[in-house]
Amino acid sequence: MPEQLVIIGGVAAGMSAASKARRLRPDLAIVVYEQSGYVSYGACGFPYYIKGEIPHVDNLIARTPQQFAQQNIQVQLHHQVRAIDPQARLVHGRNLSTGADFTQPWDKLIITAGSTPTRPPVPGFDLPGSFTLRSVEDALAIRRWLEEERPRHGVIVGAGYIGLEMAEALAAHGVTLTLLDLAPQVLPLLDNDMAAHVQTELERQGVAVQLGQAITALAGNGQVREVVAGNERFPAEIVIFGVGVKPNVQMAREIGIALGPTGAIAVDQQQCTNLPNIWAAGDVAEAYHRVTGRPSYVPLGTTANKQGRVAGTNAAGGNANFAGIVGTALVKVFDLHVASTGLSAQRAAQEGFKVATVNATVSSRAEYMPGHQPIQVKLVFEHGSQRLLGAQLIGREGVSKRIDVVAAALHNGWTTYDLAELDLGYAPPFAPVWDPLLVAANLANR
Amino acid sequence: MPEQLVIIGGVAAGMSAASKARRLRPDLAIVVYEQSGYVSYGACGFPYYIKGEIPHVDNLIARTPQQFAQQNIQVQLHHQVRAIDPQARLVHGRNLSTGADFTQPWDKLIITAGSTPTRPPVPGFDLPGSFTLRSVEDALAIRRWLEEERPRHGVIVGAGYIGLEMAEALAAHGVTLTLLDLAPQVLPLLDNDMAAHVQTELERQGVAVQLGQAITALAGNGQVREVVAGNERFPAEIVIFGVGVKPNVQMAREIGIALGPTGAIAVDQQQCTNLPNIWAAGDVAEAYHRVTGRPSYVPLGTTANKQGRVAGTNAAGGNANFAGIVGTALVKVFDLHVASTGLSAQRAAQEGFKVATVNATVSSRAEYMPGHQPIQVKLVFEHGSQRLLGAQLIGREGVSKRIDVVAAALHNGWTTYDLAELDLGYAPPFAPVWDPLLVAANLANR
Repeated sequence: MPEQLVIIGGVAAGMSAASKARRLRPDLAIVVYEQSGYVSYGACGFPYYIKGEIPHVDNLIARTPQQFAQQNIQVQLHHQVRAIDPQARLVHGRNLSTGADFTQPWDKLIITAGSTPTRPPVPGFDLPGSFTLRSVEDALAIRRWLEEERPRHGVIVGAGYIGLEMAEALAAHGVTLTLLDLAPQVLPLLDNDMAAHVQTELERQGVAVQLGQAITALAGNGQVREVVAGNERFPAEIVIFGVGVKPNVQMAREIGIALGPTGAIAVDQQQCTNLPNIWAAGDVAEAYHRVTGRPSYVPLGTTANKQGRVAGTNAAGGNANFAGIVGTALVKVFDLHVASTGLSAQRAAQEGFKVATVNATVSSRAEYMPGHQPIQVKLVFEHGSQRLLGAQLIGREGVSKRIDVVAAALHNGWTTYDLAELDLGYAPPFAPVWDPLLVAANLANR
Repeated sequence: MPEQLVIIGGVAAGMSAASKARRLRPDLAIVVYEQSGYVSYGACGFPYYIKGEIPHVDNLIARTPQQFAQQNIQVQLHHQVRAIDPQARLVHGRNLSTGADFTQPWDKLIITAGSTPTRPPVPGFDLPGSFTLRSVEDALAIRRWLEEERPRHGVIVGAGYIGLEMAEALAAHGVTLTLLDLAPQVLPLLDNDMAAHVQTELERQGVAVQLGQAITALAGNGQVREVVAGNERFPAEIVIFGVGVKPNVQMAREIGIALGPTGAIAVDQQQCTNLPNIWAAGDVAEAYHRVTGRPSYVPLGTTANKQGRVAGTNAAGGNANFAGIVGTALVKVFDLHVASTGLSAQRAAQEGFKVATVNATVSSRAEYMPGHQPIQVKLVFEHGSQRLLGAQLIGREGVSKRIDVVAAALHNGWTTYDLAELDLGYAPPFAPVWDPLLVAANLANR
């Protein structure tokens, strides 16, 4: 009998793990159980499929089960693993298509069970027209609802990344939108001064932004018609919840797999859990944060892919380490490009750092070039040592990959002095002679 | 008498030095001698002024002599310094407007005399219609020639950055172009496989690219009509020479200021020359190359600005160091964005490195996003150690600032393993989930 690798969950982390394990160990038997009807999809593309920018949901599928089969990776769709037996090395589950139960032995197990969007259990939360966005099935249902029901009003609950991307998607269908969030600002990963620029863009695009609003109910007859928040009522024939996700840890917890301080599965650099021969990766697991030096929960596709590769390598008998994250994130909010990495000033202060910041507004190109746009730059650093702690960039061009320089700096524990030394690329169509990052670093060094 | 700082040359390095010295030392007397009629101009913008994208040459002037005067920085235009007396601490020169000679005492001297474009002394090289591009006056003359003489054919001699930018500029005026270069490829800083993509773009835009061609004469009656290269003749009512620059070191050499192996002024990390109280910065000076560990001559505006600040700080009694360069360069070639940093494989081999490379073609955005474009990535690294030595990126978007991550990596002596670990930003409109740099690094690590 060949050694058996079982993978629970077939999106980014799971399929990265499977592919990497296969490349290293042609002899390994590999089976992936996925409860939805799709594997290896680009979940981050859902808002653009819903918007209509991507015509078919198939465009989001990187590889099909048939393609994995050609690599001798067996993919079982609509198969839900419901329990793990770490002593007997079995998983138990159900084929959701047939209702049949199954039991599968394993020698190595990788848990890539992902996360589930939170939906507050207010009255009416599950009325037709109320959605979360996680699976291909969710994306299909939302686009169908938009095309068939043609909602005129919508409410987005949650002003995080998915909420803002969905605002753009729904607006493209002519939906008049209200964005509600309990917090006093949009995009909680940003500082409030930077988040204000994003709010301005949302309002400029016609989105009514309602902050500090706790929703208390969804109302409607047979489908959602209104969102109720205290005394206020907002018309909505479609509601999208984007209020965060929770890692799917229940099965793991039941068998004594240790969770970390964030509530996700605790893993070491090799993605090992505390149980032998069981690894975890992706949205179900924590990630070491190189700026705080502590575990964090920042569920993103990039991290899932990297952790999946590491888990797949180690489950196949190799030796790989995941170096950790610095919390880099990008989001397009209508025409605005928003980038952040590391810690905001607010978060850094909570983490106990003595925080200093600089803000600068610098042109994206040489100022004499047509089409140049202002970039808002904020650097967060430690008072005294000048160690970089984070950065936020907002603009209409030249933002998304500029943040990566700071991500590299944070990865390495650099100071603002180090940043100011860098030999960054310059040509008038692409940057001013003093790059926005250098301008901000020079300000920080005064 | 206040202490006197004299600066020879008022473009990027000189005016950066003056501004920085003024900020640190309000009491210092500062005078800048500039032989042309302009200071503080963005020379890199000339091709876009000539193209017509920038309407007025004044748009390229960052600050006027009047603005510097408000900072108590005295700017003397049309004043050519012709000799330095290091013992008596004087400079001697001529006011080119009046013909009068002048003598100026100094306590501290910064040489930012820049560079001069090379023009091969072939017969007819100075016929009207034949240009180099260095000063505002050159830029004005070229645009005037284009607008008044309306040349139908043009030849660009030299396929480096300025040559290619000028190709785009002249093509915008309807000039049918031939690009000649002695070398077997365009853009000598790139490897030939990458340069081939640039050549394809030039040809797609209608530029006839003639490589391995040594020009032997310019011919014409009263103005240039033809460029002769051996047996071949190319019609040209305008000729632009972009065959490199030479540092203006003659005055310095005459008084025993040491030149380095590149022929430019040798400086230490503080921009000190070998003579006391004399600093040099910008195109007249060398720069320490962090990849080779040796002095290099890569005259660029970014380096000039940084070195100028360092020289200005130290001349004002402060303490600053220039960390060196890694040779990052960007150029737009019609619609193609071309970026490089560090060493090409060809150059790295010449430097004695045991060279390995990887090439990858990766989408600029998630592949399912409309508008995504292929990016050609080449990484150059040391066989064995995997130490990064350089990178080249070519594409139609997402190139110019992506190179900066490799610039940061080179600055710090990172390996391809380090590069592969980075937490780079991801969102479908801006990057694929595996960024092109990570794809290439992963390939390099196989």
